[in-house]
Amino acid sequence: MRVGLLGCGTVGTALVQLVAEQAAEIEARTGLTLEIARVAVRNAARDRGVALPSEVFTSDAHAVVQDPTIDVVVEVMGGIEPARELILEAIAHGKPVVTANKELLANVGAEVFAAADATGVDVLFEAAVAGGIPLVRPMRESLLGEPVTRVLGIVNGTTNYILTKMTEAGASYGDALTEAQRLGYAEADPTADVEGFDAGAKIAILASIAFGVRVVAGDVYHEGISGLRADDIAYATRRGLVVKLLAIAERCEGEHGSEVAVRVHPVMLPGTHPLAAVRESFNAVFVQGRAVGDLMFYGRGAGGAPTASAVLGDLIDAAGNTRRGTHASIGVLGKATIRPIDELESGYYINLDVVDRPGVLAAVAGVFGTHGVSISSMEQEGFGDEARLVFVTHLARERDLQATLHDLRELDVVHRVGSVIRLLDDEDAPT
Amino acid sequence: MRVGLLGCGTVGTALVQLVAEQAAEIEARTGLTLEIARVAVRNAARDRGVALPSEVFTSDAHAVVQDPTIDVVVEVMGGIEPARELILEAIAHGKPVVTANKELLANVGAEVFAAADATGVDVLFEAAVAGGIPLVRPMRESLLGEPVTRVLGIVNGTTNYILTKMTEAGASYGDALTEAQRLGYAEADPTADVEGFDAGAKIAILASIAFGVRVVAGDVYHEGISGLRADDIAYATRRGLVVKLLAIAERCEGEHGSEVAVRVHPVMLPGTHPLAAVRESFNAVFVQGRAVGDLMFYGRGAGGAPTASAVLGDLIDAAGNTRRGTHASIGVLGKATIRPIDELESGYYINLDVVDRPGVLAAVAGVFGTHGVSISSMEQEGFGDEARLVFVTHLARERDLQATLHDLRELDVVHRVGSVIRLLDDEDAPT
Repeated sequence: MRVGLLGCGTVGTALVQLVAEQAAEIEARTGLTLEIARVAVRNAARDRGVALPSEVFTSDAHAVVQDPTIDVVVEVMGGIEPARELILEAIAHGKPVVTANKELLANVGAEVFAAADATGVDVLFEAAVAGGIPLVRPMRESLLGEPVTRVLGIVNGTTNYILTKMTEAGASYGDALTEAQRLGYAEADPTADVEGFDAGAKIAILASIAFGVRVVAGDVYHEGISGLRADDIAYATRRGLVVKLLAIAERCEGEHGSEVAVRVHPVMLPGTHPLAAVRESFNAVFVQGRAVGDLMFYGRGAGGAPTASAVLGDLIDAAGNTRRGTHASIGVLGKATIRPIDELESGYYINLDVVDRPGVLAAVAGVFGTHGVSISSMEQEGFGDEARLVFVTHLARERDLQATLHDLRELDVVHRVGSVIRLLDDEDAPT
Repeated sequence: MRVGLLGCGTVGTALVQLVAEQAAEIEARTGLTLEIARVAVRNAARDRGVALPSEVFTSDAHAVVQDPTIDVVVEVMGGIEPARELILEAIAHGKPVVTANKELLANVGAEVFAAADATGVDVLFEAAVAGGIPLVRPMRESLLGEPVTRVLGIVNGTTNYILTKMTEAGASYGDALTEAQRLGYAEADPTADVEGFDAGAKIAILASIAFGVRVVAGDVYHEGISGLRADDIAYATRRGLVVKLLAIAERCEGEHGSEVAVRVHPVMLPGTHPLAAVRESFNAVFVQGRAVGDLMFYGRGAGGAPTASAVLGDLIDAAGNTRRGTHASIGVLGKATIRPIDELESGYYINLDVVDRPGVLAAVAGVFGTHGVSISSMEQEGFGDEARLVFVTHLARERDLQATLHDLRELDVVHRVGSVIRLLDDEDAPT
């Protein structure tokens, strides 16, 4: 099986090395011989330190996907274009494609899947979500018959690393981010990670597979972690809770049938929840189904070698399917009705800086009452003329909560509405 | 697709119900229509409370596997015979088989797989290990190219429930077992669970898939949890450790090539290890690979609905493969060289009841020294004339440790050698 590789950065390089190491064992177990036959890169002259002859490299990616001697195409270049164009071209030439490209799939996945199904070739993408964790295949195949109700997880290692440092070392957000950047876990511009865009793309893909509908990145509501303060984390720790940035996709019944809610935001979890034990840059995804109950998949969500491992699994599968003359279909993806965040319900943790004088608590509590948001617990700490109030609410509708926050910001006695963190479930709310 | 079901106990009943609930959605997503067409049970007259016409039931299992109108056979009867005979008969009739039978696979799996490969049909068995957790498929497919070095996990819910109660409620082994029995987590005769036989069968199957070699239940060394005492657990808790019954399969390099070590025994894990957070009757399996790093799969390891979920995933796959005229092969399973437990290395926790008088510690420590077992830490607690000594060793060879225990038992001053619990890794040893 001659493999055409598009892109040879961290993941591509790791894949070339892994294929070299494992080729003999793969052949012994499956009868498949994998050969990285052509590699398309921007600069074909650059030495990438991989054990491939220099004539394998080319800067003409179109030549690779059109090459009739290439059996399978692996795309690890990232970004929407020209990846989309090249993948569609490979499919049009009857070649199965393995991709690690979450941005592409979260935006134009439906187009790619439709093209693959029409031609009858595989598009496999285990590496696009949660790196090395086998998650896409179990969801596509093992859980195809399962009534999945919710998928929620830690799918961004950068923010999990930052939150771990804030929790375990009491670091501020800024210091934890700086350390993550120093260690290479965060980029110089961390926006895509810390504001939840990266997690949003991944949960869009997972929602599509879990519920069999088309969900795109733009459907996902997201809040990041850059506004979290050390005292939010300290509060959580005192109550036996842990703050995680979760990506959540839920199926819910709407007036006109099934709806999907997809969002990314910080959540306070009970410390005994398995996701609470996911530390550092690890990822983990919880899948909840009516029959199977709670499942969790845990591992390295990024990095060259783990991602290459996921690509290799798909590559063996695509090669095997090609040999057998079959392919795995993504199945029929219906149209999704996205439930707006306004209609969701949650318990909330809310942190307010207020003036410390008589009557303030009554004024603040009155605003909650006006909007029908019921308070489960309150804590006050004084700081000279200022006080910090922490409220935890019972289950409330997002719309009502946002109206409450709006009115609180209007109050003279409220200096600042700080963090707003959702609780995982009402029964998990600290009381 | 007409399904023939062998057995209709907890799992079979749950499967019938799940197929009824999900048939429409499965058809919408895959085009497959699943129908439980015949059910073989011991007593065909008994009402099982499932929504199937009575003529579907038969007490003649051979008639079901021979029936030319049956496309796929699901075996959830358990035990080696007659399940083995019926499965081989189904394969001989060209029918793919889905089985949840760990006992069968851990003993005569190689025979079944060889027959299936020779005929070109599927034998799928996700439900045989760790119930509803998608684990077999990810290992067979996603990780086929991964250099897996170790598989270790909590694959028995009964013992994990007992250990959770001992850890969190300070219960004795006996009280925790009684509670597990009352809740239906443990059987009246709990031997298969608490002595590690059940976990042994499962790790034999996992070792076979992970390393591509034939490992049977009889190859697995096992120790159970019935000897553990509340003070062992209390010691672990004080040190930030957690005691779990782990099933472990490792690939190691021997003198004459690759060897496999497979065992089940209690282990002390660091409290920060993700397996430490696996509570109650949940299962979780860690898979470690050179490229992918650490993976964990978590969920319900038993119960009707979770197990039925795993069976259904396989059933859809087998039906789809039948329609496409293909099948998934287990691949070539080589002969395994099993490394004897004697040659393994570990750190150890050892609990001794000794006479409390001068010179005892020197005598005991001398025995360790004689066998080259180096002590990492020691704790002594006096009880009148008696004392309890707790030793934790550095990495030692099992053979030397067993020789040490043997000689300790010979010492007059040692009343009892209590629990011996292995540490997960030397670097995790408490110091």
